[in-house]
Amino acid sequence: MSSATPASILDALNWRYAVKQFDPTRKIDAAVWADLEKSLALTPSSFGLQPWQFLIVDNPDIRAQLVPHSWHQRQVADASHLVIMTVRTSIDAAYINRYLDDVATTRQTNRDTLAGFEKMLTGAAPMMTPEWAARQAYIALGQFMLAASMLDIDTCPMEGFSAPDYDRILGLADQGLTTAVLCPAGYRAPTDSYAAAPKVRWPVTDVVRHL
Amino acid sequence: MSSATPASILDALNWRYAVKQFDPTRKIDAAVWADLEKSLALTPSSFGLQPWQFLIVDNPDIRAQLVPHSWHQRQVADASHLVIMTVRTSIDAAYINRYLDDVATTRQTNRDTLAGFEKMLTGAAPMMTPEWAARQAYIALGQFMLAASMLDIDTCPMEGFSAPDYDRILGLADQGLTTAVLCPAGYRAPTDSYAAAPKVRWPVTDVVRHL
Repeated sequence: MSSATPASILDALNWRYAVKQFDPTRKIDAAVWADLEKSLALTPSSFGLQPWQFLIVDNPDIRAQLVPHSWHQRQVADASHLVIMTVRTSIDAAYINRYLDDVATTRQTNRDTLAGFEKMLTGAAPMMTPEWAARQAYIALGQFMLAASMLDIDTCPMEGFSAPDYDRILGLADQGLTTAVLCPAGYRAPTDSYAAAPKVRWPVTDVVRHL
Repeated sequence: MSSATPASILDALNWRYAVKQFDPTRKIDAAVWADLEKSLALTPSSFGLQPWQFLIVDNPDIRAQLVPHSWHQRQVADASHLVIMTVRTSIDAAYINRYLDDVATTRQTNRDTLAGFEKMLTGAAPMMTPEWAARQAYIALGQFMLAASMLDIDTCPMEGFSAPDYDRILGLADQGLTTAVLCPAGYRAPTDSYAAAPKVRWPVTDVVRHL
């Protein structure tokens, strides 16, 4: 049943690195990309609330416009695909209601049987801040980078950008969204010397401790 | 070269779910677990700073003690392995220094060539709050859950716990650490009815938008 081996996962993780220079001429195959989008939609989240939208910026003009608001990092423009992980700035009653409707429909259960879950979500909603939502987006980020690397696709996780400028350019405020993190994806340029740099990680015995 | 196919990744993501009942009699193979620990240590993080420690609680007494501080969720006690993802409460000059020493040693570069990087890290350090560190831990969470699922290993991401109580029981404050998120791992019990429940997710076209 296993679809990978421990060694193949470690190989992918050792192969990947935060790409500094993407090859702007290489595009991810459309069918493979469509499956990566499905993988994003399958990301687990707290209470299953999926407080996100993943924006894929195909428009080269928008991507060029984002570069100066990304510490001038060219990955934003040059990668095959640019994923902008945005999150909801709040979880309101309408959103909870829409979610519970989806739970009831998907699981073919009576909406009334979800009253206890609804009460719990409504009680927890004030804690579902943009920061909480951003943490959920980072689950997507971690999952996406591993998935991509197992398909020989490069990524570069990026926190170096101006969220207010991204939100303004992408018109997110009106949609109750804000930018959490970026992940360009594509293929490393042959000239990117960082590809050959040894990976810097604390020894396993330092970061994993048994109690 | 690819170590997986898009379909195999989607299969793993559809197979996984947040396990409610682990089979307490089934243990993850020691060699496989050792590789999962390596995968945790390879998790990407902001600036490569790895502001975390992953605690694996083998001691059944400690696990039992944690249950009441985890909304009485039994996964904490019953799963084959309990991963507690803890993060640094601050990134200080000593930590930055130790990290840069490791960069210089690993990449066989003169420590002086990292002066610019050091300046950047020192400038950014005040923004490296526990919340920033927690986001990094969620990268590990997302990566770990996908890795496990591709090896037919179940997980359950858990935010429902009292961090102050965890920190106290685990003695984390003295080490400058705090608990960010939990991830029990093991094998679903045959009696866990949630395994068969259809997965609830927004349609891909709702959560992935092209611009």
